[in-house]
Amino acid sequence: MRMNTESKLEMKSRRRNIALLVAYDGTNYNGFQRQNPPSVAIQNILEDRLEKIFGDKIELAASGRTDSGVHALGQVVNFFTDGRIELENIPKATQGILPPDIVVRKAWEVDRDFSALHSAKSKIYVYKIQRGETINPFVERFSWHIPYALDVEKMKAALNLIVGEHDFSTFKAASNVQRNPVRKIFSAEIFSEEIFCADILSIKIHANGFLYRMARNIVASIVAVGRERLSLDDFKKIFAARDRNLAPPTAPAQGLCLQEVFY
Amino acid sequence: MRMNTESKLEMKSRRRNIALLVAYDGTNYNGFQRQNPPSVAIQNILEDRLEKIFGDKIELAASGRTDSGVHALGQVVNFFTDGRIELENIPKATQGILPPDIVVRKAWEVDRDFSALHSAKSKIYVYKIQRGETINPFVERFSWHIPYALDVEKMKAALNLIVGEHDFSTFKAASNVQRNPVRKIFSAEIFSEEIFCADILSIKIHANGFLYRMARNIVASIVAVGRERLSLDDFKKIFAARDRNLAPPTAPAQGLCLQEVFY
Repeated sequence: MRMNTESKLEMKSRRRNIALLVAYDGTNYNGFQRQNPPSVAIQNILEDRLEKIFGDKIELAASGRTDSGVHALGQVVNFFTDGRIELENIPKATQGILPPDIVVRKAWEVDRDFSALHSAKSKIYVYKIQRGETINPFVERFSWHIPYALDVEKMKAALNLIVGEHDFSTFKAASNVQRNPVRKIFSAEIFSEEIFCADILSIKIHANGFLYRMARNIVASIVAVGRERLSLDDFKKIFAARDRNLAPPTAPAQGLCLQEVFY
Repeated sequence: MRMNTESKLEMKSRRRNIALLVAYDGTNYNGFQRQNPPSVAIQNILEDRLEKIFGDKIELAASGRTDSGVHALGQVVNFFTDGRIELENIPKATQGILPPDIVVRKAWEVDRDFSALHSAKSKIYVYKIQRGETINPFVERFSWHIPYALDVEKMKAALNLIVGEHDFSTFKAASNVQRNPVRKIFSAEIFSEEIFCADILSIKIHANGFLYRMARNIVASIVAVGRERLSLDDFKKIFAARDRNLAPPTAPAQGLCLQEVFY
């Protein structure tokens, strides 16, 4: 018996721990986290296709879930496998069998104790707002269209207020039961860019972690400040009150993108 | 009888000639030009929805057809109508009833003799190439993914060769029966841009007109030069030969976008 357990461990120890950098257009999926059919999540598709390539059962860990409709350019996942495929061939091998809205950008081997979830040190989320009267169909899937005037300077001032270590209870999901609502925001910027001729306002937040819905709830309040529905003083008070019920409803999923995860 | 004809003309003369600036993601449509069901073209959808708004039969003229899968940021159409809706309300009124991948950006009244097709003086088409090993899903619908090295300086040199007034028979569709294959290219540029973190190479061509498939056929040959499958000298010879059969096959539709029409 003892020998068996040891040889199992020995076998297990030969399995490689592989990390993937994954991008996806979340429009057509029910979020990242595995779902029971007929609901389809990005994890379902990735695990299914990776099993075809590696030849064994694949269970992914991801840096975090992304909600239904949220996108990623830099999601990181890892998994253990006996499969022997060369890592440099994985992006191409997966390209042929994944739908075009899910892409493996890179694959590399990581230490046995690396976990895409637990080893993550910080993340950058970017939220895109499309300004102007009419929707630009090229960015429609990846942005929140706001046809009203926005005071960008006020939005900038409000973003400055959330930088640092704070209790983000005001911006967590109402249903959230995470024990510790304290997170540290390293930077929170807003900038204009032109994408496919559309006038895009991007809000980029780098933090050591995000509570569930935190990025979208922050954006909703920042937009309320920009529309002058919320004064900077009110924003300050609401943030300090640590009460989700005082803040505006969550911003739409489609504007949000997990840009990068740092380890 | 004469009175009737005159009063008909009188009535007709009261109809307004209205121009629209239209953007669309062509991915899901069988080109711009009206099709017989069950095939769906952008024109079918636009005419159907505009009839709902204006209350009379709408027949659009467009600056030109775009092929199946080709996009537009600046397509221009015009039509005559008795409908009395305020023009400034049209972008919003259409937004509610058009699918999200077709957008009316602007509406304005034009002279009775204005024709979006016949009055067009020149057009700009932009073709987007996505570089890098893996496909970025955010630009996948709007670009041609080329994972091979491209010599941009050579592409630039080839583009310089087509500027000016030339016989573009080499780059017309094989089936094309247009009488006059001479067009004037005012500028043909290539430049890099980052779109949604993807490395995009854009080819922008401004000409007094484009033969059927001309933009995509030019791009295919420029890419062949960039990949060093075609020397600059060969490009020169093929262009001068006015023989479509000598040039590489047409570049994919999805990279092409009708950017602007000038009147």
